[in-house]
Amino acid sequence: MIVIIPECGRFAPRNDGWQPLGNRMHAKTPHLFDEATRVTAGDSRWQGHTSDDYWAFVGPFGGATAATILRALIEHPQAAGDPLAVTVNYCAPIAQGPFDLDVRLVKANRSSQHWCVELSQGGGEVATLATAVFAERRPSWAHQVAEFPGAPPFEATLPFQGMAASWANQYDFRFIEGELRIGASRQDTPASSYSKLWIGDRTPRKLDVLSLLAMSDAFIGRVFHARREMVPFGTVSLTTYFHTDSKALAAEDITRVLAVADAKIFHKSYGDQTGELWSPGGRLLATTTQIAYFKA
Amino acid sequence: MIVIIPECGRFAPRNDGWQPLGNRMHAKTPHLFDEATRVTAGDSRWQGHTSDDYWAFVGPFGGATAATILRALIEHPQAAGDPLAVTVNYCAPIAQGPFDLDVRLVKANRSSQHWCVELSQGGGEVATLATAVFAERRPSWAHQVAEFPGAPPFEATLPFQGMAASWANQYDFRFIEGELRIGASRQDTPASSYSKLWIGDRTPRKLDVLSLLAMSDAFIGRVFHARREMVPFGTVSLTTYFHTDSKALAAEDITRVLAVADAKIFHKSYGDQTGELWSPGGRLLATTTQIAYFKA
Repeated sequence: MIVIIPECGRFAPRNDGWQPLGNRMHAKTPHLFDEATRVTAGDSRWQGHTSDDYWAFVGPFGGATAATILRALIEHPQAAGDPLAVTVNYCAPIAQGPFDLDVRLVKANRSSQHWCVELSQGGGEVATLATAVFAERRPSWAHQVAEFPGAPPFEATLPFQGMAASWANQYDFRFIEGELRIGASRQDTPASSYSKLWIGDRTPRKLDVLSLLAMSDAFIGRVFHARREMVPFGTVSLTTYFHTDSKALAAEDITRVLAVADAKIFHKSYGDQTGELWSPGGRLLATTTQIAYFKA
Repeated sequence: MIVIIPECGRFAPRNDGWQPLGNRMHAKTPHLFDEATRVTAGDSRWQGHTSDDYWAFVGPFGGATAATILRALIEHPQAAGDPLAVTVNYCAPIAQGPFDLDVRLVKANRSSQHWCVELSQGGGEVATLATAVFAERRPSWAHQVAEFPGAPPFEATLPFQGMAASWANQYDFRFIEGELRIGASRQDTPASSYSKLWIGDRTPRKLDVLSLLAMSDAFIGRVFHARREMVPFGTVSLTTYFHTDSKALAAEDITRVLAVADAKIFHKSYGDQTGELWSPGGRLLATTTQIAYFKA
């Protein structure tokens, strides 16, 4: 049996010394995030498994699903370059349990790759449809147009508590602006949909492209902010662009991002979200956008 | 032979009275945009053809390709609802001539559909990979967060002239801010990458979701603005969200949008772009983002 243990080397044979559960702070036990996004290798067909630790209302946390898909691509023998753009379309809820990933390298050029991944369960219909572009990132003229939002240090901000879903407990959210306030002084006019916050894994984990992708879906639904109430909600499509690469992230050696998110519109049962994920030092690492269903 | 003539009814038989070329201002001749994005119906396999009228540097204008793909979906017998999200990954240049569209309805729910489309030529590799979400847009609580950028009337602004590519000549660009100025007072610091402009079809055409999608890719590369020079450039992935639907657009009866676009970062040969497309009356119709390759 071949198991990929990302923190311990690739395609390492599973043996008795590897403990998926138990003392999670032990250096040799994988981080919960790595457990949740673990994949087993196939040729074009890979397998993953939902994680109760990253569970949302009616299915797995979409960020964990996205990261699991991206892990399958990164660990794929044909993968070259770094992820540049990932789009994940959430077609149907994923049930608790194992799932299959049908992974196809649709087109490869000299410096980029185009992937398509379909997630399904038990030979059934597609539950998640994703595309990804990988690219060799070559040195070039560079210009960061967006302004670093700035914030007091992570340590000087208070952890947010108040999300019931298990996935939210895997993150350490520290709001600087736009903290979620359900029911607080409900107004006739919508509240702000803007948030600025630190996002880190609850158990600190060195940021990589996988956790960066997951965090790009870790913003709390903008509609909850604007309405100050929880309503039925589900991300339909998520797109994240990477403005960093694995090597740069490894050198950066950080465990959290400064993130901002806002919405532009809520209209006929769907609302959008845009977000930026910054290194504490002021580098824009990723930008993200999503469109989500809501009932209100 | 079955030809879809969108302006004249669906699945209309081709006959001698229909003139694809010739007097283009005649009411019964299709708009150039409709010619450029025409598709012929198959089962899962549809056909399109590149248009010299919408040609870019090394291939068709990406917005025309995106609109052609969307037209195949909208005209598809199984299509239900309105386009909500479209992502187009440009994998390789498309050569002048016919192309095939492999159209798959990946998953359909009660109120949404998930599509995947692969564009290829001559039985070769995939040149464009797209996903789309269609949805029934039900009435809901609504809130437009983004502020209408505002602008002097279209008629009071000057047409932009200065793009060599044929596709650009199909549009009437009227800049209010951030007009492209190649070589003008080249500075050490990058110029602004922000633009505000009116975009209309050169020959006015009532806005629909097809032309709205095409216009979401009609911004001139942000890197040209920031560097004030033309450099090798190509969109790699485009994502557009619709905040309107066919019925609302039909009622709106407009021929142009007020558009804003900006970049957040240029880094290691790739730069992003975000954009908003507004109705002249102040309704946010679509939001868009893309990541593009550049050489500089």
